[in-house]
Amino acid sequence: MSKDSEMVVELAKKARAAVSDAANLTTLQKNQFLEKAATHILKSSQRIQEENRKDLEAAKAKGLSSAMIDRLVLNDQRIQDMAQGLLDVFKLEDPVGQVVKGWVRPNGLRVEKVRIPLGVICMIYESRPNVTVDAAGLCLKSGNVVVLRGGSEAFHSNQILGTILREVLVEEKINPDVIQVVPTTDREAVQTLLVQDQYIDLVIPRGGESLMNMLRQYSKIPVIKHDKGVCHIFVDYNADLEKAEQIVLNAKVQRPGVCNALETLLVDQKLAHQFLPRMVQELQNQGVEVRGCQKTQEISENVQVATEEDWDTEYLEKILSIKIVEGIDEALEHIRQYSSLHTESILTNDEQHAERFLREVNSSAVLVNASTRFNDGGQLGLGAEIGISTTKLHAFGPMGLEELTTQKYVIRGEGQIRE
Amino acid sequence: MSKDSEMVVELAKKARAAVSDAANLTTLQKNQFLEKAATHILKSSQRIQEENRKDLEAAKAKGLSSAMIDRLVLNDQRIQDMAQGLLDVFKLEDPVGQVVKGWVRPNGLRVEKVRIPLGVICMIYESRPNVTVDAAGLCLKSGNVVVLRGGSEAFHSNQILGTILREVLVEEKINPDVIQVVPTTDREAVQTLLVQDQYIDLVIPRGGESLMNMLRQYSKIPVIKHDKGVCHIFVDYNADLEKAEQIVLNAKVQRPGVCNALETLLVDQKLAHQFLPRMVQELQNQGVEVRGCQKTQEISENVQVATEEDWDTEYLEKILSIKIVEGIDEALEHIRQYSSLHTESILTNDEQHAERFLREVNSSAVLVNASTRFNDGGQLGLGAEIGISTTKLHAFGPMGLEELTTQKYVIRGEGQIRE
Repeated sequence: MSKDSEMVVELAKKARAAVSDAANLTTLQKNQFLEKAATHILKSSQRIQEENRKDLEAAKAKGLSSAMIDRLVLNDQRIQDMAQGLLDVFKLEDPVGQVVKGWVRPNGLRVEKVRIPLGVICMIYESRPNVTVDAAGLCLKSGNVVVLRGGSEAFHSNQILGTILREVLVEEKINPDVIQVVPTTDREAVQTLLVQDQYIDLVIPRGGESLMNMLRQYSKIPVIKHDKGVCHIFVDYNADLEKAEQIVLNAKVQRPGVCNALETLLVDQKLAHQFLPRMVQELQNQGVEVRGCQKTQEISENVQVATEEDWDTEYLEKILSIKIVEGIDEALEHIRQYSSLHTESILTNDEQHAERFLREVNSSAVLVNASTRFNDGGQLGLGAEIGISTTKLHAFGPMGLEELTTQKYVIRGEGQIRE
Repeated sequence: MSKDSEMVVELAKKARAAVSDAANLTTLQKNQFLEKAATHILKSSQRIQEENRKDLEAAKAKGLSSAMIDRLVLNDQRIQDMAQGLLDVFKLEDPVGQVVKGWVRPNGLRVEKVRIPLGVICMIYESRPNVTVDAAGLCLKSGNVVVLRGGSEAFHSNQILGTILREVLVEEKINPDVIQVVPTTDREAVQTLLVQDQYIDLVIPRGGESLMNMLRQYSKIPVIKHDKGVCHIFVDYNADLEKAEQIVLNAKVQRPGVCNALETLLVDQKLAHQFLPRMVQELQNQGVEVRGCQKTQEISENVQVATEEDWDTEYLEKILSIKIVEGIDEALEHIRQYSSLHTESILTNDEQHAERFLREVNSSAVLVNASTRFNDGGQLGLGAEIGISTTKLHAFGPMGLEELTTQKYVIRGEGQIRE
């Protein structure tokens, strides 16, 4: 085993040993930490930007794209945002100890389901260094120990952010091992981390296909994936066309690089002639490249042909594929075949179609007459989110503080035995 | 790929293709199936016992223990019990479509969390053929497709039970692929099944260490383990001794072969002299072999020495290890070190100790003044259970109908877009 691999095993052991310390923190202790950490991050702006510069220089030397480099930058504004993020978590209710439900059994046993932390969570993520601070805040508030492994491009930024958070832990007399940033980007070391299932309870990966493939290949630890969203909107035969235009534009253009952005538009043939030519025009005016089925090409201008691969693709940029369908049956069939179970929306004034769509589409969020962009922890009112899970188990959709906990049974008796 | 491996891939594909059929069954359809299946099983008693005899003969020829052979037997009583099990599931509320909670966002979006099936569940289990019927009933009622892979000893019994259930599905015009029994016990074929993560959503294993190791090694599908229970009772300094005796006896002796039975007893030294000699005597009267720490040996008769290995062992038989501790701190420390996170109980009249124990022990069930044997779906009021999960994710503890579902967000708007 390499030195780096040995090191991550030690780190995982220390994380496991800190589980009780994290679980037993009071809400007051956790909130004090979050507040002080926000202040300390603001005060350390210069230290952070110095380390961040090393990452930026390396990125430029490697010739990374300007979009990639932009994601790495930690300027004053982004440092303020990170601090604000911790204060947002400060305001959220502490999920640990919440009684979810309770009842009394015929024999007098009083039963409760109570929220408890999951234990040790390992986050594996790419580029944006703010995830280091966001994830640390959410995991600590939910009573978990967190092991953070960011992308190699953000190595120095992640290290300094980890150091700053741990300085505050020490100051607050909290075991600093509750937040650990893996001090290596060695690939073998990550693979070693992924088999430490005796120390780590959950891996949360946020990233692209190669990361997901690595997890599938190596992880012996349960994984909740934050994977791709091939999101659909179906414009039904009697949709309100003005609202439909606004929703489609919003879902595709407002922020095309995120997982809840629209990728495929399905349109009922009964209103295709009336709706599509203008819709396509407006999308193109906003810089969207439109690809479509043959019928779409026939009735709209400048539409590329959509291939089989398009229906399966999360573009994450200003490209949209459009298909004209015979009606709701074909729309549902297309979604069944190509959806990544992330987010789908129907635009309709037919109540029965709306309810059928909501019932039959089992994606993490199903909407009627609203933009796909609402599948988001903040927008749905969960407060902060650690990501949007595409794994059906445990947390499906936005994963907030509650989803970072599990539940135990608490049972109070007066001497009951089983007959 | 072997013929058997090819066959299980086909089977998994068919299971995936049946997901919508299972999810869209109405409660009425599911209940009619459960009722007719119960009747058909009773009517098919002779067919079942004929096939069961083949398994019993093979078991005898292989020289399996009489306990093992007893687990395999399907006599009139057990066939009635299986039918009754389906009628019990009939009575349970349908979890699919249940609105768990709902709220309205400031922009008018109406948000609901709604229960949906998980999709395709693969059960892997050993010996007892009744699991085939129990699991099929629970999975169907929760709208899931199930792939059942029982132990090789019960092969013929499981096959005939699967055939009978599918006969009823066909009669009820339900896609028979919603319940499939794997028609091979080939080991390579199971390993092939465990990498069909594009078709199967969840694996639930029920069995011993070698099964769990196989899953750890091969599964690419999320796993909820039903693993061992090293369960503890701590008798605190001021426990009611009469009740304590009854609870300890009940937890150890009432059914020693199950995962929620007591394996290690911790006793506060302040009442050890008063409590233990008689307790040990009573356990021995009931045929329990007692192993203990040095202090236990000093004050009780006929106590074997408990080694380090004992503290880590799920005996599943009439053996109990006993340790005298200095107080609640040492008891909690012992539990932290050796608990399998299944079930722990404190017997005490000290309210603060009770609450501290309930708070600090994060096992799937924590009890005060009650037997560990209550960590059971039926006893806690969940209705039937598919097993007791020792995985913290998704379902921790008894796994009933609700735990066989996940939740999606249903969002109703009137044209909302994201600012």
